[in-house]
Amino acid sequence: MGKETNSPNSAFAHVYAVIMAGGSGTRFWPLSRRKRPKQLLEIFGKTTLIEQTVERLKGVVPPERIYIFTNEFVHADIVRRLPQILKRQIVAEPAQRNTAPTIGLAAHEILRRDPAGVMAILPADHVIKKPAAFRSALKAACRWAGTPGRSVVLGIEPTRPETGYGYVRLGAPAGRIGNQDILRVEKFTEKPKLPLARRYVASKRYLWNAGMFIWRASTLIENLQRLQPQMARGLEEIAAEGGIDNRRALKKLFPRLEKISIDYALMEKLSEVFAVAGDIGWSDVGSWAVAYELSAKDKHGNVQPGNSLSIDCAGNLLVSRRSFLVTIGVENLIIVETGDALLVCARERSQDVGKAVHEIEQLKMNKFL
Amino acid sequence: MGKETNSPNSAFAHVYAVIMAGGSGTRFWPLSRRKRPKQLLEIFGKTTLIEQTVERLKGVVPPERIYIFTNEFVHADIVRRLPQILKRQIVAEPAQRNTAPTIGLAAHEILRRDPAGVMAILPADHVIKKPAAFRSALKAACRWAGTPGRSVVLGIEPTRPETGYGYVRLGAPAGRIGNQDILRVEKFTEKPKLPLARRYVASKRYLWNAGMFIWRASTLIENLQRLQPQMARGLEEIAAEGGIDNRRALKKLFPRLEKISIDYALMEKLSEVFAVAGDIGWSDVGSWAVAYELSAKDKHGNVQPGNSLSIDCAGNLLVSRRSFLVTIGVENLIIVETGDALLVCARERSQDVGKAVHEIEQLKMNKFL
Repeated sequence: MGKETNSPNSAFAHVYAVIMAGGSGTRFWPLSRRKRPKQLLEIFGKTTLIEQTVERLKGVVPPERIYIFTNEFVHADIVRRLPQILKRQIVAEPAQRNTAPTIGLAAHEILRRDPAGVMAILPADHVIKKPAAFRSALKAACRWAGTPGRSVVLGIEPTRPETGYGYVRLGAPAGRIGNQDILRVEKFTEKPKLPLARRYVASKRYLWNAGMFIWRASTLIENLQRLQPQMARGLEEIAAEGGIDNRRALKKLFPRLEKISIDYALMEKLSEVFAVAGDIGWSDVGSWAVAYELSAKDKHGNVQPGNSLSIDCAGNLLVSRRSFLVTIGVENLIIVETGDALLVCARERSQDVGKAVHEIEQLKMNKFL
Repeated sequence: MGKETNSPNSAFAHVYAVIMAGGSGTRFWPLSRRKRPKQLLEIFGKTTLIEQTVERLKGVVPPERIYIFTNEFVHADIVRRLPQILKRQIVAEPAQRNTAPTIGLAAHEILRRDPAGVMAILPADHVIKKPAAFRSALKAACRWAGTPGRSVVLGIEPTRPETGYGYVRLGAPAGRIGNQDILRVEKFTEKPKLPLARRYVASKRYLWNAGMFIWRASTLIENLQRLQPQMARGLEEIAAEGGIDNRRALKKLFPRLEKISIDYALMEKLSEVFAVAGDIGWSDVGSWAVAYELSAKDKHGNVQPGNSLSIDCAGNLLVSRRSFLVTIGVENLIIVETGDALLVCARERSQDVGKAVHEIEQLKMNKFL
């Protein structure tokens, strides 16, 4: 493909990024809170995941063509962290309506700016360890998606029979861009049970659906008009009132849109769907255990902050924000201390952190959420 | 023995308590600190151990005959907690010189007040679960010690081959007071290795030396004059300057006394030593693991504070002072959080907490000591 530039005449002058940063995950409690969800944590590198998501687009999408959709809890923090992005392009949604309404809102904004606009939907809270490979896959996907009617999934080659993700089934080859194969997608699947997930992985015909989609804004809007006409009308109404610039209309109309994911609303119903498979070092960092796996460890397998002292410990992830932490003779624990809250969890049980947060909600201990 | 009263004519009108509260133990870190050693912790009941020590003497030694020897770090706190004890009788030692100099200083004070004074040396940081049995044993010891020349040890029947304590070997019966046998002590032993400790326990001829001694003040001073003449002279010099009331003399002269325990200085060298064995529910609470054993537990064997939430946890001791603590899937841990410091320790490793504190000292992180 040769070196790409950001000049308006480049192949990517019509590419816009739509970063989905509305997540309010509970799985990194007590570090993650309503006001500091996973995408705003700094434990996965020198900067937050949302900053990394923007940084990773360098050379493909310039800041002026990046949009971020988030919630009111974290909007100000994101604006502060990303001064290179126009404040009007960092949108606090007045209500959580899942991904389809957000993507539709973004599509109208992009279409207004650029009738040939191609939008790349990108989650803000994933780790991608091979950014160059990501950019290469993204560029291929954007080129392929430039043709009207096409929807492209940037999927991940599965490395384990994960039951927590959706999968896409690959079909016939559809083309090649640079060194990147484009394949037809036969089917979107829901999260499979373990035996099925094992078959998916063994077949080599499946990719993980990581929530990264690329298509022309016009294609998305046409697909919504055809398959989700009610939502399409609601989105047109918002667009007619000024879209993301009319805060009042947004507050009134956006919460009325159906709360539905783009997967259910569209992807499972579309025919012209293609996949680009990326070996991009991807992880959705879905639990403290995964954060442990991704982190640099000392010779005893401990992930350890500076203000701590360990005697005969191994395999622990230690996060200590306020306290001097001493550990003695403990193994395979997640210990996270934030001043007001403290988690001590067996590493193999870290998928249950969300359960604890749910209990805290039930107990109405809101200051810990 | 019948009911005792505190009238000056009672059998115990000459009994004085000398509570040894100078300890600066590290084994309950991070709850215990220089300014809040074990005797000032409230985790072993509704009050601190030193308050319990005073309370336990009710009916035997009235407050006006109780002396407390402690250090400058905690003096003010002890004065505040024990308003019933005259401030002049709560003495901050200007230097830590181990037990012999302290006991000698106390002996001169008591002798000055009461030539027939009998002094009971009692540690401030032990748990005694059967206070009535303790008082009964103490009374017998005090009566026996009323005869000049006698030294009495209130010893504990060993329940396990503990290698962390000294033992006393019992000899021939010497008498009986009430239902309390008085036996001769043949020998004081140092902390034994495990095989020897096992033999001690099996023989039933040994008691644990818990640091509780009873004798006439005059007997103690005579023994020091004979066996520790240099220390005896130093103590006489302090007494001539006004003893505990002359702070300046104490500051100058007390630190010059030899730093030595009463066990080494005297007990191992004396012949007229007797023992009273007490089944008094004694524990020196030498580690977090022992504190766990002594505490009330929920049905999963957790010792748990109010501000915590546990999912699938068992056998943990949880102390949480500042943070809301969530534990998931962890067993047999000691977790202690104090705002500035946090300990997570395998219960079976709690004897190594002191080692961690030593490392903190080496690192010169004094604010955590």
